[in-house]
Amino acid sequence: MSTIEIKDKLLSKNDQNALANRNLFDRHGVWCVNLISAPGSGKTSLIESTADHLSGRLNLGVLVGDLETENDANRIAAHGVPVRQIITGGACHLNARTVGDFLVHFDLERLDALIIENVGNLVCPASYYLGEHDRVSLISTPEGDDKPLKYPGAIHTSDVMLITKTDLAPYTDFSIARCRENALKIESELTVMALSVRSGEGLDAWLEWFELHAGKKKKRAESTAAKGK
Amino acid sequence: MSTIEIKDKLLSKNDQNALANRNLFDRHGVWCVNLISAPGSGKTSLIESTADHLSGRLNLGVLVGDLETENDANRIAAHGVPVRQIITGGACHLNARTVGDFLVHFDLERLDALIIENVGNLVCPASYYLGEHDRVSLISTPEGDDKPLKYPGAIHTSDVMLITKTDLAPYTDFSIARCRENALKIESELTVMALSVRSGEGLDAWLEWFELHAGKKKKRAESTAAKGK
Repeated sequence: MSTIEIKDKLLSKNDQNALANRNLFDRHGVWCVNLISAPGSGKTSLIESTADHLSGRLNLGVLVGDLETENDANRIAAHGVPVRQIITGGACHLNARTVGDFLVHFDLERLDALIIENVGNLVCPASYYLGEHDRVSLISTPEGDDKPLKYPGAIHTSDVMLITKTDLAPYTDFSIARCRENALKIESELTVMALSVRSGEGLDAWLEWFELHAGKKKKRAESTAAKGK
Repeated sequence: MSTIEIKDKLLSKNDQNALANRNLFDRHGVWCVNLISAPGSGKTSLIESTADHLSGRLNLGVLVGDLETENDANRIAAHGVPVRQIITGGACHLNARTVGDFLVHFDLERLDALIIENVGNLVCPASYYLGEHDRVSLISTPEGDDKPLKYPGAIHTSDVMLITKTDLAPYTDFSIARCRENALKIESELTVMALSVRSGEGLDAWLEWFELHAGKKKKRAESTAAKGK
Protein backbone atom coordinates (compact mmCIF):
# COMPACT_ATOMS: atom_id res chain seq x y z
CA MET A 1 0.00 0.00 0.00
CA SER A 2 2.75 2.43 0.91
CA THR A 3 4.36 1.80 -2.48
CA ILE A 4 1.20 2.98 -4.20
CA GLU A 5 1.05 6.06 -2.03
CA ILE A 6 4.63 7.00 -2.90
CA LYS A 7 4.00 6.40 -6.57
CA ASP A 8 0.94 8.63 -6.43
CA LYS A 9 3.01 11.39 -4.92
CA LEU A 10 5.64 11.01 -7.62
CA LEU A 11 3.03 11.72 -10.28
CA SER A 12 2.84 15.44 -10.93
CA LYS A 13 -0.47 17.20 -10.44
CA ASN A 14 -0.66 17.55 -14.22
CA ASP A 15 -0.15 13.83 -14.76
CA GLN A 16 -2.86 13.04 -12.22
CA ASN A 17 -5.28 15.28 -14.08
CA ALA A 18 -4.17 13.76 -17.38
CA LEU A 19 -4.91 10.25 -16.11
CA ALA A 20 -8.37 11.42 -15.05
CA ASN A 21 -8.93 12.72 -18.60
CA ARG A 22 -7.65 9.45 -20.02
CA ASN A 23 -10.04 7.44 -17.85
CA LEU A 24 -12.92 9.61 -18.99
CA PHE A 25 -11.96 9.13 -22.65
CA ASP A 26 -11.71 5.36 -22.17
CA ARG A 27 -15.01 5.15 -20.32
CA HIS A 28 -16.77 6.83 -23.25
CA GLY A 29 -14.79 5.11 -26.00
CA VAL A 30 -13.28 8.38 -27.22
CA TRP A 31 -9.87 8.25 -28.89
CA CYS A 32 -7.89 11.43 -28.13
CA VAL A 33 -5.01 12.79 -30.19
CA ASN A 34 -2.86 15.80 -29.18
CA LEU A 35 -1.40 17.89 -32.04
CA ILE A 36 1.83 19.75 -31.25
CA SER A 37 3.73 22.08 -33.57
CA ALA A 38 5.29 25.49 -34.07
CA PRO A 39 2.98 28.37 -35.03
CA GLY A 40 1.77 28.07 -38.60
CA SER A 41 2.71 24.45 -39.26
CA GLY A 42 -0.80 23.70 -40.43
CA LYS A 43 -2.59 22.14 -37.45
CA THR A 44 -5.89 23.93 -38.09
CA SER A 45 -5.87 23.21 -41.83
CA LEU A 46 -5.17 19.55 -41.11
CA ILE A 47 -8.14 19.41 -38.72
CA GLU A 48 -10.43 21.11 -41.26
CA SER A 49 -9.40 18.64 -43.95
CA THR A 50 -9.67 15.64 -41.62
CA ALA A 51 -13.15 16.72 -40.54
CA ASP A 52 -14.28 17.08 -44.17
CA HIS A 53 -12.90 13.72 -45.26
CA LEU A 54 -14.18 11.75 -42.28
CA SER A 55 -17.58 13.45 -42.15
CA GLY A 56 -20.28 10.77 -41.81
CA ARG A 57 -17.69 8.13 -40.89
CA LEU A 58 -16.52 9.31 -37.46
CA ASN A 59 -17.92 11.75 -34.92
CA LEU A 60 -15.16 14.23 -34.17
CA GLY A 61 -14.76 16.89 -31.51
CA VAL A 62 -12.01 19.49 -31.37
CA LEU A 63 -10.46 21.42 -28.50
CA VAL A 64 -8.24 24.32 -29.63
CA GLY A 65 -5.65 26.13 -27.53
CA ASP A 66 -4.36 29.61 -28.34
CA LEU A 67 -2.85 32.51 -26.44
CA GLU A 68 -5.47 34.80 -27.96
CA THR A 69 -8.31 34.90 -30.53
CA GLU A 70 -11.08 32.44 -31.39
CA ASN A 71 -10.04 32.37 -35.05
CA ASP A 72 -9.15 28.68 -35.15
CA ALA A 73 -12.35 27.54 -33.42
CA ASN A 74 -14.40 29.65 -35.85
CA ARG A 75 -12.59 28.10 -38.82
CA ILE A 76 -13.17 24.56 -37.54
CA ALA A 77 -16.80 25.18 -36.52
CA ALA A 78 -17.55 26.05 -40.16
CA HIS A 79 -16.88 22.36 -40.95
CA GLY A 80 -19.76 21.22 -38.75
CA VAL A 81 -17.63 19.82 -35.95
CA PRO A 82 -18.26 20.52 -32.24
CA VAL A 83 -15.35 22.71 -31.15
CA ARG A 84 -14.26 24.70 -28.10
CA GLN A 85 -11.53 27.31 -27.92
CA ILE A 86 -9.30 27.52 -24.85
CA ILE A 87 -7.73 30.97 -24.68
CA THR A 88 -4.68 30.61 -22.45
CA GLY A 89 -4.16 34.37 -22.09
CA GLY A 90 -0.42 34.11 -22.55
CA ALA A 91 0.28 30.60 -21.23
CA CYS A 92 2.56 28.71 -23.61
CA HIS A 93 0.87 25.28 -23.50
CA LEU A 94 -2.34 23.49 -22.54
CA ASN A 95 -2.43 21.62 -19.26
CA ALA A 96 -4.49 18.59 -18.30
CA ARG A 97 -6.67 20.39 -15.81
CA THR A 98 -7.87 23.02 -18.30
CA VAL A 99 -8.54 20.31 -20.87
CA GLY A 100 -10.52 18.40 -18.23
CA ASP A 101 -12.56 21.51 -17.40
CA PHE A 102 -13.53 21.89 -21.06
CA LEU A 103 -14.57 18.26 -21.58
CA VAL A 104 -17.96 18.97 -20.00
CA HIS A 105 -18.81 20.93 -23.16
CA PHE A 106 -18.70 17.76 -25.29
CA ASP A 107 -21.15 14.90 -25.56
CA LEU A 108 -18.41 12.32 -25.06
CA GLU A 109 -20.82 9.41 -25.46
CA ARG A 110 -21.43 10.55 -29.03
CA LEU A 111 -17.79 11.22 -29.96
CA ASP A 112 -15.44 8.74 -31.60
CA ALA A 113 -12.41 11.00 -31.52
CA LEU A 114 -11.31 14.20 -29.82
CA ILE A 115 -8.56 16.23 -31.48
CA ILE A 116 -6.66 18.63 -29.22
CA GLU A 117 -4.90 21.39 -31.13
CA ASN A 118 -2.27 22.57 -28.68
CA VAL A 119 -0.83 26.12 -28.47
CA GLY A 120 1.53 26.79 -31.39
CA ASN A 121 4.84 26.08 -29.68
CA LEU A 122 7.21 23.21 -30.39
CA VAL A 123 8.80 23.40 -26.93
CA CYS A 124 6.57 23.65 -23.85
CA PRO A 125 3.51 21.56 -24.86
CA ALA A 126 5.81 18.52 -25.19
CA SER A 127 6.24 18.46 -21.40
CA TYR A 128 2.51 18.28 -20.57
CA TYR A 129 0.61 15.03 -20.96
CA LEU A 130 -3.08 15.78 -21.44
CA GLY A 131 -4.40 12.22 -21.29
CA GLU A 132 -4.21 11.67 -25.06
CA HIS A 133 -3.87 8.20 -26.58
CA ASP A 134 -1.60 9.44 -29.34
CA ARG A 135 0.56 12.49 -29.81
CA VAL A 136 1.32 13.87 -33.25
CA SER A 137 4.03 16.48 -33.95
CA LEU A 138 3.88 18.52 -37.13
CA ILE A 139 6.93 19.98 -38.88
CA SER A 140 6.16 22.00 -42.01
CA THR A 141 8.67 22.00 -44.87
CA PRO A 142 9.44 25.76 -44.73
CA GLU A 143 10.68 25.28 -41.13
CA GLY A 144 13.64 23.17 -42.25
CA ASP A 145 14.55 19.49 -42.05
CA ASP A 146 16.87 20.05 -39.04
CA LYS A 147 13.97 20.78 -36.68
CA PRO A 148 13.58 17.28 -35.16
CA LEU A 149 17.16 17.54 -33.83
CA LYS A 150 16.58 21.03 -32.45
CA TYR A 151 13.25 20.22 -30.77
CA PRO A 152 13.85 16.67 -29.52
CA GLY A 153 11.29 16.82 -26.70
CA ALA A 154 8.32 17.08 -29.04
CA ILE A 155 9.63 14.36 -31.35
CA HIS A 156 10.67 12.01 -28.55
CA THR A 157 7.23 12.08 -26.91
CA SER A 158 5.29 11.72 -30.17
CA ASP A 159 3.81 8.62 -31.77
CA VAL A 160 3.68 10.21 -35.20
CA MET A 161 5.60 13.01 -36.88
CA LEU A 162 3.76 14.60 -39.77
CA ILE A 163 5.80 16.50 -42.32
CA THR A 164 3.29 19.08 -43.59
CA LYS A 165 3.16 21.52 -46.53
CA THR A 166 5.04 19.20 -48.88
CA ASP A 167 3.69 21.39 -51.73
CA LEU A 168 6.15 24.11 -50.56
CA ALA A 169 9.16 21.76 -50.42
CA PRO A 170 10.27 22.46 -54.01
CA TYR A 171 10.73 26.14 -53.09
CA THR A 172 12.90 25.39 -50.03
CA ASP A 173 16.00 23.29 -49.20
CA PHE A 174 13.82 20.82 -47.30
CA SER A 175 14.53 17.11 -47.76
CA ILE A 176 11.82 14.73 -46.55
CA ALA A 177 14.38 11.89 -46.33
CA ARG A 178 16.73 13.99 -44.17
CA CYS A 179 13.90 15.17 -41.89
CA ARG A 180 12.73 11.59 -41.40
CA GLU A 181 16.31 10.46 -40.69
CA ASN A 182 16.77 13.26 -38.12
CA ALA A 183 13.49 12.35 -36.45
CA LEU A 184 14.35 8.65 -36.24
CA LYS A 185 17.66 9.56 -34.56
CA ILE A 186 15.58 11.07 -31.73
CA GLU A 187 12.83 8.44 -31.62
CA SER A 188 13.39 5.20 -33.51
CA GLU A 189 9.78 3.97 -32.97
CA LEU A 190 8.27 7.06 -34.59
CA THR A 191 5.79 6.77 -37.45
CA VAL A 192 6.64 9.42 -40.05
CA MET A 193 4.21 10.61 -42.72
CA ALA A 194 4.48 13.47 -45.21
CA LEU A 195 1.50 15.33 -46.65
CA SER A 196 0.09 18.49 -48.10
CA VAL A 197 -3.41 19.56 -47.15
CA ARG A 198 -3.34 21.99 -50.08
CA SER A 199 -2.47 19.48 -52.82
CA GLY A 200 -3.91 16.41 -51.08
CA GLU A 201 -0.62 14.52 -51.44
CA GLY A 202 -0.15 11.98 -48.65
CA LEU A 203 -3.50 12.75 -47.05
CA ASP A 204 -4.86 9.23 -47.58
CA ALA A 205 -2.21 7.64 -45.35
CA TRP A 206 -2.96 10.14 -42.58
CA LEU A 207 -6.73 9.58 -42.81
CA GLU A 208 -6.22 5.83 -42.79
CA TRP A 209 -3.99 6.08 -39.71
CA PHE A 210 -6.49 8.39 -38.02
CA GLU A 211 -9.53 6.27 -38.78
CA LEU A 212 -7.76 3.07 -37.77
CA HIS A 213 -6.85 4.49 -34.37
CA ALA A 214 -10.20 6.18 -33.75
CA GLY A 215 -11.98 3.04 -34.94
CA LYS A 216 -9.92 0.73 -32.77
CA LYS A 217 -10.72 2.83 -29.75
CA LYS A 218 -14.40 2.82 -30.59
CA LYS A 219 -14.45 -0.95 -31.04
CA ARG A 220 -12.62 -1.45 -27.75
CA ALA A 221 -15.19 0.69 -25.94
CA GLU A 222 -18.09 -1.19 -27.52
CA SER A 223 -16.57 -4.52 -26.59
CA THR A 224 -16.00 -3.30 -23.01
CA ALA A 225 -19.61 -2.10 -22.82
CA ALA A 226 -20.83 -5.44 -24.17
CA LYS A 227 -19.01 -7.15 -21.32
CA GLY A 228 -21.04 -4.97 -18.93
CA LYS A 229 -17.99 -3.21 -17.51
CA MET B 1 16.28 56.23 -0.65
CA SER B 2 13.50 53.84 0.42
CA THR B 3 11.72 54.49 -2.89
CA ILE B 4 14.75 53.24 -4.79
CA GLU B 5 15.00 50.16 -2.60
CA ILE B 6 11.35 49.27 -3.19
CA LYS B 7 11.73 49.83 -6.92
CA ASP B 8 14.78 47.57 -6.93
CA LYS B 9 12.80 44.85 -5.24
CA LEU B 10 10.00 45.18 -7.77
CA LEU B 11 12.44 44.41 -10.57
CA SER B 12 12.59 40.71 -11.23
CA LYS B 13 15.90 38.93 -10.93
CA ASN B 14 15.89 38.55 -14.71
CA ASP B 15 15.36 42.28 -15.24
CA GLN B 16 18.20 43.08 -12.84
CA ASN B 17 20.51 40.82 -14.85
CA ALA B 18 19.23 42.33 -18.09
CA LEU B 19 20.02 45.84 -16.87
CA ALA B 20 23.55 44.68 -16.00
CA ASN B 21 23.91 43.39 -19.57
CA ARG B 22 22.54 46.63 -20.92
CA ASN B 23 25.06 48.65 -18.89
CA LEU B 24 27.87 46.46 -20.18
CA PHE B 25 26.71 46.93 -23.79
CA ASP B 26 26.49 50.70 -23.31
CA ARG B 27 29.91 50.93 -21.65
CA HIS B 28 31.48 49.24 -24.67
CA GLY B 29 29.34 50.94 -27.30
CA VAL B 30 27.76 47.68 -28.41
CA TRP B 31 24.27 47.80 -29.89
CA CYS B 32 22.33 44.64 -29.02
CA VAL B 33 19.34 43.25 -30.91
CA ASN B 34 17.24 40.26 -29.79
CA LEU B 35 15.63 38.18 -32.56
CA ILE B 36 12.44 36.31 -31.58
CA SER B 37 10.42 33.97 -33.78
CA ALA B 38 8.83 30.57 -34.19
CA PRO B 39 11.09 27.67 -35.26
CA GLY B 40 12.10 27.97 -38.89
CA SER B 41 11.11 31.59 -39.51
CA GLY B 42 14.56 32.34 -40.89
CA LYS B 43 16.51 33.91 -38.01
CA THR B 44 19.78 32.12 -38.84
CA SER B 45 19.53 32.83 -42.58
CA LEU B 46 18.89 36.49 -41.83
CA ILE B 47 21.98 36.64 -39.59
CA GLU B 48 24.12 34.93 -42.26
CA SER B 49 22.96 37.38 -44.89
CA THR B 50 23.35 40.40 -42.59
CA ALA B 51 26.90 39.32 -41.70
CA ASP B 52 27.82 38.95 -45.38
CA HIS B 53 26.37 42.30 -46.42
CA LEU B 54 27.83 44.29 -43.51
CA SER B 55 31.21 42.58 -43.55
CA GLY B 56 33.95 45.25 -43.37
CA ARG B 57 31.41 47.91 -42.32
CA LEU B 58 30.42 46.72 -38.82
CA ASN B 59 31.98 44.28 -36.36
CA LEU B 60 29.25 41.82 -35.44
CA GLY B 61 29.02 39.17 -32.76
CA VAL B 62 26.26 36.55 -32.47
CA LEU B 63 24.87 34.63 -29.51
CA VAL B 64 22.60 31.74 -30.51
CA GLY B 65 20.11 29.94 -28.27
CA ASP B 66 18.80 26.46 -29.01
CA LEU B 67 17.38 23.57 -27.01
CA GLU B 68 19.92 21.26 -28.67
CA THR B 69 22.61 21.16 -31.40
CA GLU B 70 25.34 23.63 -32.40
CA ASN B 71 24.07 23.68 -36.01
CA ASP B 72 23.19 27.37 -36.08
CA ALA B 73 26.48 28.52 -34.53
CA ASN B 74 28.39 26.41 -37.07
CA ARG B 75 26.42 27.95 -39.93
CA ILE B 76 27.06 31.48 -38.70
CA ALA B 77 30.76 30.88 -37.88
CA ALA B 78 31.29 29.99 -41.55
CA HIS B 79 30.59 33.67 -42.30
CA GLY B 80 33.60 34.82 -40.28
CA VAL B 81 31.60 36.21 -37.35
CA PRO B 82 32.44 35.52 -33.69
CA VAL B 83 29.60 33.33 -32.43
CA ARG B 84 28.70 31.35 -29.31
CA GLN B 85 25.97 28.75 -28.98
CA ILE B 86 23.93 28.54 -25.79
CA ILE B 87 22.36 25.10 -25.52
CA THR B 88 19.45 25.46 -23.13
CA GLY B 89 18.95 21.71 -22.73
CA GLY B 90 15.19 21.97 -22.97
CA ALA B 91 14.57 25.48 -21.64
CA CYS B 92 12.16 27.37 -23.88
CA HIS B 93 13.84 30.80 -23.87
CA LEU B 94 17.10 32.59 -23.11
CA ASN B 95 17.38 34.45 -19.84
CA ALA B 96 19.48 37.51 -19.02
CA ARG B 97 21.79 35.70 -16.63
CA THR B 98 22.86 33.07 -19.18
CA VAL B 99 23.38 35.77 -21.79
CA GLY B 100 25.52 37.69 -19.27
CA ASP B 101 27.60 34.58 -18.55
CA PHE B 102 28.35 34.18 -22.27
CA LEU B 103 29.37 37.82 -22.84
CA VAL B 104 32.85 37.10 -21.45
CA HIS B 105 33.51 35.14 -24.66
CA PHE B 106 33.28 38.30 -26.79
CA ASP B 107 35.71 41.17 -27.19
CA LEU B 108 33.01 43.75 -26.54
CA GLU B 109 35.39 46.65 -27.08
CA ARG B 110 35.81 45.50 -30.68
CA LEU B 111 32.12 44.83 -31.40
CA ASP B 112 29.67 47.31 -32.90
CA ALA B 113 26.66 45.05 -32.65
CA LEU B 114 25.65 41.85 -30.88
CA ILE B 115 22.80 39.83 -32.38
CA ILE B 116 21.03 37.43 -30.03
CA GLU B 117 19.17 34.66 -31.83
CA ASN B 118 16.68 33.49 -29.24
CA VAL B 119 15.27 29.95 -28.94
CA GLY B 120 12.74 29.28 -31.72
CA ASN B 121 9.54 29.99 -29.83
CA LEU B 122 7.12 32.84 -30.41
CA VAL B 123 5.73 32.68 -26.86
CA CYS B 124 8.12 32.44 -23.91
CA PRO B 125 11.13 34.52 -25.10
CA ALA B 126 8.82 37.55 -25.31
CA SER B 127 8.61 37.63 -21.49
CA TYR B 128 12.37 37.80 -20.88
CA TYR B 129 14.23 41.07 -21.39
CA LEU B 130 17.89 40.30 -22.07
CA GLY B 131 19.23 43.86 -22.00
CA GLU B 132 18.83 44.40 -25.75
CA HIS B 133 18.39 47.87 -27.26
CA ASP B 134 15.98 46.62 -29.89
CA ARG B 135 13.79 43.57 -30.24
CA VAL B 136 12.84 42.17 -33.62
CA SER B 137 10.10 39.57 -34.16
CA LEU B 138 10.07 37.52 -37.34
CA ILE B 139 6.92 36.07 -38.91
CA SER B 140 7.51 34.03 -42.06
CA THR B 141 4.84 34.03 -44.77
CA PRO B 142 4.07 30.27 -44.57
CA GLU B 143 3.06 30.76 -40.92
CA GLY B 144 0.05 32.87 -41.90
CA ASP B 145 -0.86 36.54 -41.63
CA ASP B 146 -3.01 36.00 -38.52
CA LYS B 147 0.00 35.28 -36.31
CA PRO B 148 0.48 38.79 -34.82
CA LEU B 149 -3.01 38.52 -33.29
CA LYS B 150 -2.35 35.04 -31.94
CA TYR B 151 1.07 35.85 -30.45
CA PRO B 152 0.55 39.40 -29.19
CA GLY B 153 3.25 39.26 -26.52
CA ALA B 154 6.09 38.99 -29.02
CA ILE B 155 4.65 41.70 -31.24
CA HIS B 156 3.77 44.06 -28.41
CA THR B 157 7.31 44.00 -26.96
CA SER B 158 9.06 44.34 -30.33
CA ASP B 159 10.44 47.44 -32.01
CA VAL B 160 10.38 45.84 -35.43
CA MET B 161 8.36 43.04 -37.01
CA LEU B 162 10.04 41.44 -39.99
CA ILE B 163 7.85 39.52 -42.41
CA THR B 164 10.29 36.95 -43.81
CA LYS B 165 10.25 34.49 -46.75
CA THR B 166 8.23 36.81 -49.00
CA ASP B 167 9.43 34.61 -51.90
CA LEU B 168 7.04 31.90 -50.59
CA ALA B 169 4.05 34.26 -50.28
CA PRO B 170 2.73 33.54 -53.81
CA TYR B 171 2.31 29.86 -52.86
CA THR B 172 0.33 30.63 -49.70
CA ASP B 173 -2.71 32.71 -48.68
CA PHE B 174 -0.45 35.19 -46.92
CA SER B 175 -1.17 38.91 -47.35
CA ILE B 176 1.60 41.29 -46.30
CA ALA B 177 -0.92 44.12 -45.94
CA ARG B 178 -3.16 42.04 -43.67
CA CYS B 179 -0.22 40.87 -41.53
CA ARG B 180 0.99 44.45 -41.13
CA GLU B 181 -2.53 45.57 -40.22
CA ASN B 182 -2.87 42.79 -37.62
CA ALA B 183 0.52 43.70 -36.12
CA LEU B 184 -0.34 47.40 -35.88
CA LYS B 185 -3.56 46.51 -34.02
CA ILE B 186 -1.33 45.01 -31.31
CA GLU B 187 1.43 47.65 -31.35
CA SER B 188 0.77 50.87 -33.22
CA GLU B 189 4.40 52.10 -32.90
CA LEU B 190 5.82 49.00 -34.58
CA THR B 191 8.14 49.29 -37.59
CA VAL B 192 7.14 46.61 -40.12
CA MET B 193 9.42 45.42 -42.92
CA ALA B 194 9.01 42.55 -45.37
CA LEU B 195 11.91 40.70 -46.98
CA SER B 196 13.22 37.53 -48.50
CA VAL B 197 16.79 36.46 -47.75
CA ARG B 198 16.54 34.02 -50.66
CA SER B 199 15.51 36.53 -53.35
CA GLY B 200 17.07 39.59 -51.71
CA GLU B 201 13.76 41.48 -51.89
CA GLY B 202 13.45 44.05 -49.10
CA LEU B 203 16.88 43.27 -47.66
CA ASP B 204 18.22 46.80 -48.27
CA ALA B 205 15.70 48.39 -45.92
CA TRP B 206 16.60 45.89 -43.19
CA LEU B 207 20.34 46.45 -43.62
CA GLU B 208 19.82 50.20 -43.57
CA TRP B 209 17.79 49.97 -40.37
CA PHE B 210 20.38 47.67 -38.83
CA GLU B 211 23.37 49.79 -39.77
CA LEU B 212 21.67 52.98 -38.66
CA HIS B 213 20.94 51.55 -35.22
CA ALA B 214 24.32 49.88 -34.77
CA GLY B 215 26.06 53.01 -36.09
CA LYS B 216 24.12 55.34 -33.81
CA LYS B 217 25.10 53.27 -30.84
CA LYS B 218 28.75 53.25 -31.90
CA LYS B 219 28.79 57.02 -32.38
CA ARG B 220 27.18 57.56 -28.98
CA ALA B 221 29.84 55.41 -27.31
CA GLU B 222 32.65 57.23 -29.08
CA SER B 223 31.25 60.60 -28.09
CA THR B 224 30.93 59.43 -24.46
CA ALA B 225 34.52 58.19 -24.52
CA ALA B 226 35.72 61.53 -26.00
CA LYS B 227 34.10 63.32 -23.06
CA GLY B 228 36.28 61.18 -20.78
CA LYS B 229 33.33 59.39 -19.16
